[in-house]
Amino acid sequence: MRITKLQGKMESWDAALISPGANFYYLTGLNPLGTLERLFLLVVPSSSSPFIIAPKLYEHELQDFPLEVIFWSDDENPYLIFRSQMERIGRENGRILVEDQMPAGVLLKLLQALKGYKLEPLGPIISELRVRKSEEEIELLKNAAEIVDKVFYHIIEKEELQGMEEREVAFLIESLIKKFGGDGVSFPPIVASGPNGANPHHTPGDRKIKEGDLLIMDYGALYKGYCSDITRTVGIGSIPEEARKVYEIVKEAQETAFQRVEDGVRAMDVDLAAREVISNYGYGDYFIHRTGHGLGIDVHEEPYITPTNKRKLENGMVFTIEPGIYLPGKLGVRIEDDVYVSEKGVRLTQADRNLKIL
Amino acid sequence: MRITKLQGKMESWDAALISPGANFYYLTGLNPLGTLERLFLLVVPSSSSPFIIAPKLYEHELQDFPLEVIFWSDDENPYLIFRSQMERIGRENGRILVEDQMPAGVLLKLLQALKGYKLEPLGPIISELRVRKSEEEIELLKNAAEIVDKVFYHIIEKEELQGMEEREVAFLIESLIKKFGGDGVSFPPIVASGPNGANPHHTPGDRKIKEGDLLIMDYGALYKGYCSDITRTVGIGSIPEEARKVYEIVKEAQETAFQRVEDGVRAMDVDLAAREVISNYGYGDYFIHRTGHGLGIDVHEEPYITPTNKRKLENGMVFTIEPGIYLPGKLGVRIEDDVYVSEKGVRLTQADRNLKIL
Repeated sequence: MRITKLQGKMESWDAALISPGANFYYLTGLNPLGTLERLFLLVVPSSSSPFIIAPKLYEHELQDFPLEVIFWSDDENPYLIFRSQMERIGRENGRILVEDQMPAGVLLKLLQALKGYKLEPLGPIISELRVRKSEEEIELLKNAAEIVDKVFYHIIEKEELQGMEEREVAFLIESLIKKFGGDGVSFPPIVASGPNGANPHHTPGDRKIKEGDLLIMDYGALYKGYCSDITRTVGIGSIPEEARKVYEIVKEAQETAFQRVEDGVRAMDVDLAAREVISNYGYGDYFIHRTGHGLGIDVHEEPYITPTNKRKLENGMVFTIEPGIYLPGKLGVRIEDDVYVSEKGVRLTQADRNLKIL
Repeated sequence: MRITKLQGKMESWDAALISPGANFYYLTGLNPLGTLERLFLLVVPSSSSPFIIAPKLYEHELQDFPLEVIFWSDDENPYLIFRSQMERIGRENGRILVEDQMPAGVLLKLLQALKGYKLEPLGPIISELRVRKSEEEIELLKNAAEIVDKVFYHIIEKEELQGMEEREVAFLIESLIKKFGGDGVSFPPIVASGPNGANPHHTPGDRKIKEGDLLIMDYGALYKGYCSDITRTVGIGSIPEEARKVYEIVKEAQETAFQRVEDGVRAMDVDLAAREVISNYGYGDYFIHRTGHGLGIDVHEEPYITPTNKRKLENGMVFTIEPGIYLPGKLGVRIEDDVYVSEKGVRLTQADRNLKIL
């Protein structure tokens, strides 16, 4: 069980306090909504049973929940309940881990009950648990990846993009993600046409897609709490020779980086494999971001695939490989897949990477 | 200027620390994205000039920004910069206000630079500023309201809802909000058909809308950072007599509460006006939530229109009036408008409240 694994990593800490969000979901499978105004807290003591403090409102929803739940009603002060529980489990002047995303308004109230305790962020410890995915998690990530593959094939086979505004394409992508079974998007789609493609974080606007454009579509699905993230770049009608050339370089860089993935290889080696291909063709100055990022419950998490990250890749790690070339005022190309490590790399997203001309 | 007003309310506090979000937007007009990983902070000292600590990444975006900005680059520790700034402005053992939504991971790092300071949540102070809207804010809220009116008329005039799944209608509403100029939704639309209508917070599912249903549509638009929130209930084909009766009671309750709105009247008087109508018809036990909530940059904010809130309504306050009747296993009716106080109440949402049969 994931909570037991967390306890195994807690060493000299006395307890961890986790508010709803990605880590709460990872540890409990619960994603309670509307909990901003009312205290909802998972407490994991290092050496006794974990429990949840929850508003009575959630009694029905949590009736079969496997952990102990202490409910509080609107006429009680949940922070007093918290304090008495901490007195029960805690040592004076203990050391407490706090979920990094907990709102300060909640933390300040918890602090009043934690005088003399030393607080530290939970982030680094729990991200070490989350970075290696279980088979079940890989399965969910695979499902999320299949959805974005289907969206891509639907778009290139059935849609007429020329003449559409970028933001219309972004909205189309969102609706297709839901149509193909996604619970939503893992981030707002990036759709960047022609010269807008030179900005890797372009916000889709009212520019109309036209003959001769390269079009970057970078989007992801959410499936049962897990993310996918894909980028494909397509040509619209007759595109310039340079666009074709740049496309083939990025494709080669992405493939080369992918081939480099292996249990025990450093993250930086994967980044540098992509970077070397692009540099050898003389476009090194135009690859202006890292090669990838980890993927799971969050769309950006460990491991980061950067030129300086010495961390070794291990079986079960999942991340993107997404090199790009950005020529200001002209165009951009990015090709991105989600990959997991199983001795060698295995692609989760599998949509065709050959240049498509629509 | 809003920051000056905040300083005027700071009394014995030495500074306020505000991370990006609704209050940051209210005070600066900025809504910087992607700032979770890098420190981005507005510091408002009580008696000297406010300034922002921002990643160098944002230098271009902030080049004409009217406040002082202290940029930090990736090879600097922004928390050390923060500490030296606090030493410059602060007194030892000062009192600091902290934005309630600041992530704990950020707050814990700021705390290391704030030893000996006393921290309190900013929420109560800034919500007192935000609760009275300026004319400019009313104008933005009016724009957000016009969008949801247009969505309603489009749906009743042009769409065939019978046979659609609730979640398809929810998605249609989202797309219409964008079509009519919204920047997005202010919350995920609630679409509840037939017996599902008896749950005020129903999540739209795969139930198909059919003859004889009442259908509740509760949705809102975002416009330049400001929210609208409307509910209309419509009948599908031939509906039962009880459904018509309940509809007319809720409509009367909503109108009666609206007529009660006036500068100086207590929030609870507006709630009780709606509650009394519904109770007089014998449905008091089936009106199971408060009558409304404030509306602005957040979709739930002060003033709350509850049976016990003695706060007096004042000119410039904006809130919803949304009584409902919920008959478990059968149906629900809710009618909601956004209203502002200008001596008497003025409706921002104005879509027809007469029962529509589609």
